[in-house]
Amino acid sequence: MIKVSIIGATGYTGSELLRYLIPHQDVELIHLTSRSHAGTQVTSYYPFLTGSIDLKFTELKPDAVFTDSDLVFICLPHGHSMELSALASTFDVKVIDLGADFRLKNIDVYEETYKVEQAAPNLLKEFVYGLPEKYREDIKNAQYIANPGCFVTSALLGLLPAVVHALIDPQSIIIDSKTGVSGAGRSASVDKLLTELTGNFKAYNPLLHRHIPEIEQELNSASEHTVQVQFTPHLIPVERGIFSTIYASVEDGITERDIIDSYKSAYQHEPFVHVLDKGELPQMKHVSGTNNCQLSVQLDERTGRLIVLSIIDNLGKGAAGQAVQNMNIMFGLPEKTGLAAIAMMP
Amino acid sequence: MIKVSIIGATGYTGSELLRYLIPHQDVELIHLTSRSHAGTQVTSYYPFLTGSIDLKFTELKPDAVFTDSDLVFICLPHGHSMELSALASTFDVKVIDLGADFRLKNIDVYEETYKVEQAAPNLLKEFVYGLPEKYREDIKNAQYIANPGCFVTSALLGLLPAVVHALIDPQSIIIDSKTGVSGAGRSASVDKLLTELTGNFKAYNPLLHRHIPEIEQELNSASEHTVQVQFTPHLIPVERGIFSTIYASVEDGITERDIIDSYKSAYQHEPFVHVLDKGELPQMKHVSGTNNCQLSVQLDERTGRLIVLSIIDNLGKGAAGQAVQNMNIMFGLPEKTGLAAIAMMP
Amino acid sequence: MIKVSIIGATGYTGSELLRYLIPHQDVELIHLTSRSHAGTQVTSYYPFLTGSIDLKFTELKPDAVFTDSDLVFICLPHGHSMELSALASTFDVKVIDLGADFRLKNIDVYEETYKVEQAAPNLLKEFVYGLPEKYREDIKNAQYIANPGCFVTSALLGLLPAVVHALIDPQSIIIDSKTGVSGAGRSASVDKLLTELTGNFKAYNPLLHRHIPEIEQELNSASEHTVQVQFTPHLIPVERGIFSTIYASVEDGITERDIIDSYKSAYQHEPFVHVLDKGELPQMKHVSGTNNCQLSVQLDERTGRLIVLSIIDNLGKGAAGQAVQNMNIMFGLPEKTGLAAIAMMP
Amino acid sequence: MIKVSIIGATGYTGSELLRYLIPHQDVELIHLTSRSHAGTQVTSYYPFLTGSIDLKFTELKPDAVFTDSDLVFICLPHGHSMELSALASTFDVKVIDLGADFRLKNIDVYEETYKVEQAAPNLLKEFVYGLPEKYREDIKNAQYIANPGCFVTSALLGLLPAVVHALIDPQSIIIDSKTGVSGAGRSASVDKLLTELTGNFKAYNPLLHRHIPEIEQELNSASEHTVQVQFTPHLIPVERGIFSTIYASVEDGITERDIIDSYKSAYQHEPFVHVLDKGELPQMKHVSGTNNCQLSVQLDERTGRLIVLSIIDNLGKGAAGQAVQNMNIMFGLPEKTGLAAIAMMP
Repeated sequence: MIKVSIIGATGYTGSELLRYLIPHQDVELIHLTSRSHAGTQVTSYYPFLTGSIDLKFTELKPDAVFTDSDLVFICLPHGHSMELSALASTFDVKVIDLGADFRLKNIDVYEETYKVEQAAPNLLKEFVYGLPEKYREDIKNAQYIANPGCFVTSALLGLLPAVVHALIDPQSIIIDSKTGVSGAGRSASVDKLLTELTGNFKAYNPLLHRHIPEIEQELNSASEHTVQVQFTPHLIPVERGIFSTIYASVEDGITERDIIDSYKSAYQHEPFVHVLDKGELPQMKHVSGTNNCQLSVQLDERTGRLIVLSIIDNLGKGAAGQAVQNMNIMFGLPEKTGLAAIAMMP
Repeated sequence: MIKVSIIGATGYTGSELLRYLIPHQDVELIHLTSRSHAGTQVTSYYPFLTGSIDLKFTELKPDAVFTDSDLVFICLPHGHSMELSALASTFDVKVIDLGADFRLKNIDVYEETYKVEQAAPNLLKEFVYGLPEKYREDIKNAQYIANPGCFVTSALLGLLPAVVHALIDPQSIIIDSKTGVSGAGRSASVDKLLTELTGNFKAYNPLLHRHIPEIEQELNSASEHTVQVQFTPHLIPVERGIFSTIYASVEDGITERDIIDSYKSAYQHEPFVHVLDKGELPQMKHVSGTNNCQLSVQLDERTGRLIVLSIIDNLGKGAAGQAVQNMNIMFGLPEKTGLAAIAMMP
Repeated sequence: MIKVSIIGATGYTGSELLRYLIPHQDVELIHLTSRSHAGTQVTSYYPFLTGSIDLKFTELKPDAVFTDSDLVFICLPHGHSMELSALASTFDVKVIDLGADFRLKNIDVYEETYKVEQAAPNLLKEFVYGLPEKYREDIKNAQYIANPGCFVTSALLGLLPAVVHALIDPQSIIIDSKTGVSGAGRSASVDKLLTELTGNFKAYNPLLHRHIPEIEQELNSASEHTVQVQFTPHLIPVERGIFSTIYASVEDGITERDIIDSYKSAYQHEPFVHVLDKGELPQMKHVSGTNNCQLSVQLDERTGRLIVLSIIDNLGKGAAGQAVQNMNIMFGLPEKTGLAAIAMMP
Repeated sequence: MIKVSIIGATGYTGSELLRYLIPHQDVELIHLTSRSHAGTQVTSYYPFLTGSIDLKFTELKPDAVFTDSDLVFICLPHGHSMELSALASTFDVKVIDLGADFRLKNIDVYEETYKVEQAAPNLLKEFVYGLPEKYREDIKNAQYIANPGCFVTSALLGLLPAVVHALIDPQSIIIDSKTGVSGAGRSASVDKLLTELTGNFKAYNPLLHRHIPEIEQELNSASEHTVQVQFTPHLIPVERGIFSTIYASVEDGITERDIIDSYKSAYQHEPFVHVLDKGELPQMKHVSGTNNCQLSVQLDERTGRLIVLSIIDNLGKGAAGQAVQNMNIMFGLPEKTGLAAIAMMP
C-alpha cells in the first residue's frame, strides 16, 4: 500500500482526489490537512463521502506529513507549495503538486505570470511536467511532479501531434476553450453563485489568461518553430468539464489523412486519450468524472484549417485524475488502477 | 409621475424592482441608494440594464430620500427598516417595506422569530399587510405597506379560500414548498455556488423556518378556528420561482365542486391570480418574470385530501412584482400598469 | 465469472447497468440486446463508453440469451417481460426484471394499474421483491427478482422502520417526491426537452400515480394496520436523483429518540443506507451515481409529525444499482462488489 | 392598430412573437395558424399566456389571413414560405418571413444550401434583408422582409464595422459561436432532451453549417475584398442566447482606438446595439428576453488579432425581437415600441 497524504484537502481538487483515492486498491490515506477544518470528520465536511471514509482533517504539520507518507499531493493555491516542496526534499517522499508553482521552467515568466517570487529555484529542474503522453519515461523515475493545468492539458493533447509533426502554421493557433465552473474553485464569490451563472455564458480574461505561457512552453519544446497561441477561456454554466475548439492553418500539402494518422498514431497506446472516428463529435459530458480525453480532428478543405475538438474533465484529466495517473506511473502500477470508472450519462 | 426611490438597490429584490420600474410609465426614479456601491453608475453594476437607465447609486441620506420621493421602497435585511420607517413617518412619503420588520403584528412573535427588538412598535398598526387579494381596500389608503414574504404569498394564495370557507381541517395543513435560489439572496456563500447546487436538491430548516408565524398569522385572521401549518422549504437548482404543494384533509361533505367554486369565486376578479381548469397542472416557469400566480386545486377522493399546487415567481408576486402592484393600488393606477410582461418560455 | 446479459440495453436503465457491470470484477457481459440498434457497436451508440467495451448490440434471440447466460437483466417497459420470463423459467438462468411486471402480487391490482393482462400468473410467486433491506434472505435463494421502482424504493426505505414499529398513524402518510428527469426515460418527447424543463418545476399525475399500489403493498405487508399513502411526484430539472419528503403523524408517546433509534437500528448493518446524525440534512446529489440512500429523520414537536427526508439516485438504488446489489446477493458476492464508487461532487 | 397574423404560431419563434406582440400597444392579433393545433385555445397550448390572450389557433386559410391582416409573420421551416409569399404578393399585405427562404440572394447557393428549389425567384429581389443596422432605409419602404438568422445576426453585428472599414484581413475571420438549445427548435428528439444536454456541451456540424453562406453574403456585400469565414456552432445547455467569440487578424497600422471608434460610431444611434466600454465583458444572459445586442471589442497586441464578443438572444434580436423591430420600422413606429422590456437577472 502506498501511504498517501493530501495537503489542502478541502477544495474541489482535494475532494476529487479523495473520490479517486478512497476506492484505489493500492492506496492508504494518512494525513488530510486543512487549515480551516482541522479536527472535523471528513464525512461531516463532505457528506457525499458518508460510508466510505473514517478520518479527520488535521492541521498541516509538514514534518509528520513528509515522514509518514510515501507520496504527498499538494493542492494549494499558487505561491504556497514552493517552501513546502523545498522542505519535502529533505525527506524521502514523493510530491505531486497540483498547483502552478513548478510548471513554468522559466523563472522570469513564472514570476511575471503569477506575481510571486520563485522561492525554490533549485527544485525547478527536479520537477517533471506531469503530462504522461509527453513525459511518461521521466515520470517513471520522478521524485517531484508538476501536475499540468486543466486548460493546458486540454490544449496540449489537442495540439501536440500537429505541432510535433509540423502539420500546422505555429503562429496560427487559436484555442477557444470552455470550462465548467469548478475550474474557478470553491471559494465564495458572487460571480460564481448559481443565480449569476445559470442560463448564462461568458468569457473571462480573454487576453491575459495565465495559462498561455504554460501552453506555449510545452508546444515550443515540442516544435522546431516558434509557437504562439491565441487562447480565450469561457465559463459554461455546468459543474465540470473542458471543451476546447482549436483552429490552426494547415501547412501546404498536408491532407486530412495525414493529420488523422498522426493523431491516431500518437495516442494508439494511450489508455486515456481516444481519437474519435471521422464523423463522430465529442460531447463534454462523455468524459465527466473520468481521466479520459476525447479528440475529434477534422480538416476544413474550404478554409484550409485544422479543427480539433478536445474534451476532458477539468477535475479529472485536468487535475486529480491526471495526478493519480502520475502516481500510478511513479509507483509502477498499471496506469488505469483506480481510474476505470465510467462517465455518468445522463 | 410618481417620484420613487429605492433604499438598498443592489440585492436581487432591488434589481427586480428596477426591472419593473424603469419601463413603468408613471414612475420617475429619484434615489437608488447603496452603502457598498454609492457613486457607481447603475449600468456598470448591473450591465443587463445597459441602455435603459442613466443614474448612479447614492449614499443613503434619509432626509433627502424622504423629501424628494412620493414613495420609497425599502429593500434591506430584517432589522434595518424600523428606524428608517420611524423617520419616514415624519415626512410626507409613502413606504413599501419589502423586508420582514412590519409583517408580524405580534411583537413577541416578531422578536422571537427574528431575534431583534421591534424598534418602532407604534408604527406597527400603521403598516398594512400588502397582500392585495386580502387587504386591497386597506392598501388603497395605506401610507405604509409591509410587503409579504415570498413563501408566505405562495402559501396564502393557495390556502385562503379553503380556510375562509372552512373547507379543510385547519390542523391538517402541510405546505411542501420549493424555491429557486434567488430567494436566498445575492450574498457570496459556498452554499449557493453553482457548483454546489446544480444537479442537486435539498431541504433547509425543515422545522424552524421563520415564515411559519407569518403564514399562521394571516390564515388565523381569516379563520374561525385555530390554524397550524407544517411547512418545509426546499431549494431547486434554478434561478427563480416558488412551487408549493399543499395538502389538507377536507371536512366532511365537502366536494371537489365546492372547493373549485370557492377558489374560482375568490379570484375571479383578481388580475394576477389564475385558477387553472381541472386537469391542468401549473409549471413554475409559466409565471417566471411576472406578478402572476397560478393555482391548481384537486380533491383526492381516495384519501380525502385537498391538494393545491401554487406557483409564483419569488421575485415577482413574491417580492418586487407585488410591491409594484401595491404601489399601483396606493396611487390609484390600474393594477396591471407596468406588470403586463409575459413569462419567458422557453 | 458470472455470464450476464441485458435485454433492452439502450434505455437509461440499460446504460446505467453497463456503467456498473463493465468494471465489475466478477461479471462477463454476453448479450446486450436492442431491437432498434442490433448490429451497432455499443461505443458508437454510447460514446461515453469509448475505451471500456468492445461489443455490439444484438437482436433478441431469447433461447440464445437464456442458454448462454447465468443471469439476465430485463430492462423493458411493463408488459414485455412476462412472456420472456415464462420462457426463461424453462432454462437454468436467473432473472432480474427491472420493469414492473412482477412487482405487484395482486393480479387484479396489477392489471388495473398497468392496463395489461398478467400473462404469467404462475411465476408471480417465484419472483422475490428485490429490496434487500426487507427481503435479503429470500433474495439469496431467489431465481427471479422483481426489482423495485425508484420512487417506491425511496419511500420504503424512508418509512419501513416507522411502519414496522408502529411509530406513526398509518393513515397519515404523505410522500412528496421529487425526481430528476431520467426517471421519465429516454424516449423523445417535447415535454422532456431541455428547453421545456430547465428553470422549471412541476408535479405530474398527483392523484393517479401507478407507484402507489406498490408502496402500499410493501408497507402493508410490514404493518399490523392498514396503511394508506398520499403520494405526489414532481420533476426537478436535473438529470438524476430522487428526494422524498415524507410526513406522518407520530403515535402518542413516541419520542424523537425512539424514532431515530428505530431507524439507526434497522439500517446499522446495511451497506448502502445511511441514517444521518441529528442536524444533518441530505442533499440529493450526495448519492448521485451510487447505490446509496441517505435518510434524515426528525420529529416536529410543534406539530407532532415525523419528517423523513430520503434520497437515492433513481438510476442507482432506484434501478441499476439495486439490481447489481441483488445480483451480488444472489451469487454470494460481497454486496459492495462493483458498487463502491463515490458520488460526484461537484 | 396594425392587424397582425402569425402563420405557424406553435414553435418557439411563434411563441416568442406572441410574447412581444400581445403587450404591443399598436398591434391587434388576428389569425394565429397552426396545422397541428387548430381549434385549440392558445392559453391551453401555451399555459404561460394564461390571462393575457383569448384566441384560438386556426387552420391556415391563406386568403383569409392575407385579406384580414396588414402584416403577416411567417414562422415555418425553410421551403414552406415561398409559395405562401407568392400568394401574399397578390394581396395588400406586408410579410416578414422568419424562415430562410428569401435570405440568400443567389438562387444556386440557396438551393445547394437548403436542398430545395427556389419556387419564387421573382420575389427574391422584393425581399429586403431585415437587419436594420445595415438596411434600415430599405426596410422603411419594404413590403417583404427576410428576417436574418440568429447566428448570422450575432456574427454580422460583431463584424460589420471591421469589414466595412477594412480593419481586418477578410480571409482570417473565425467565428466560434455558442447557442442555447431553443435555436434547435421545439420538435421532439432524444438529442434535445434535458437528460442528454444538461451538464454537457458540444459542437455540431462544425464544417457544414448552413448559415455560412448567409454570413458571407452580407459581409461580402459590405466589403471591397472577398470575405471568407470559419464558423463553428456549439450548443450550451441553456434555454436561449447566442455568444459569438470572433477572431480576425488586424491589418497593419490599425490600433485598438481605431477599432473601438469604428464600432462606437457605427452603433451610436442604434437603439439595440451597445458597444461596451474597455474592460467590460458581455454576459449572454444580460440580453435574455430582449432585442438587445452587446459587443465587446479588443485588440490583442501580442498576437495582432481583433477579438469581438457578441451576444444576443437567439429568439430576440436573433428572431422575434428583430422581426418586431422590422415591423416597427415598416409601419413608422418608434423602434423600441413593444421592445423596452429588460433582461431577467437572475
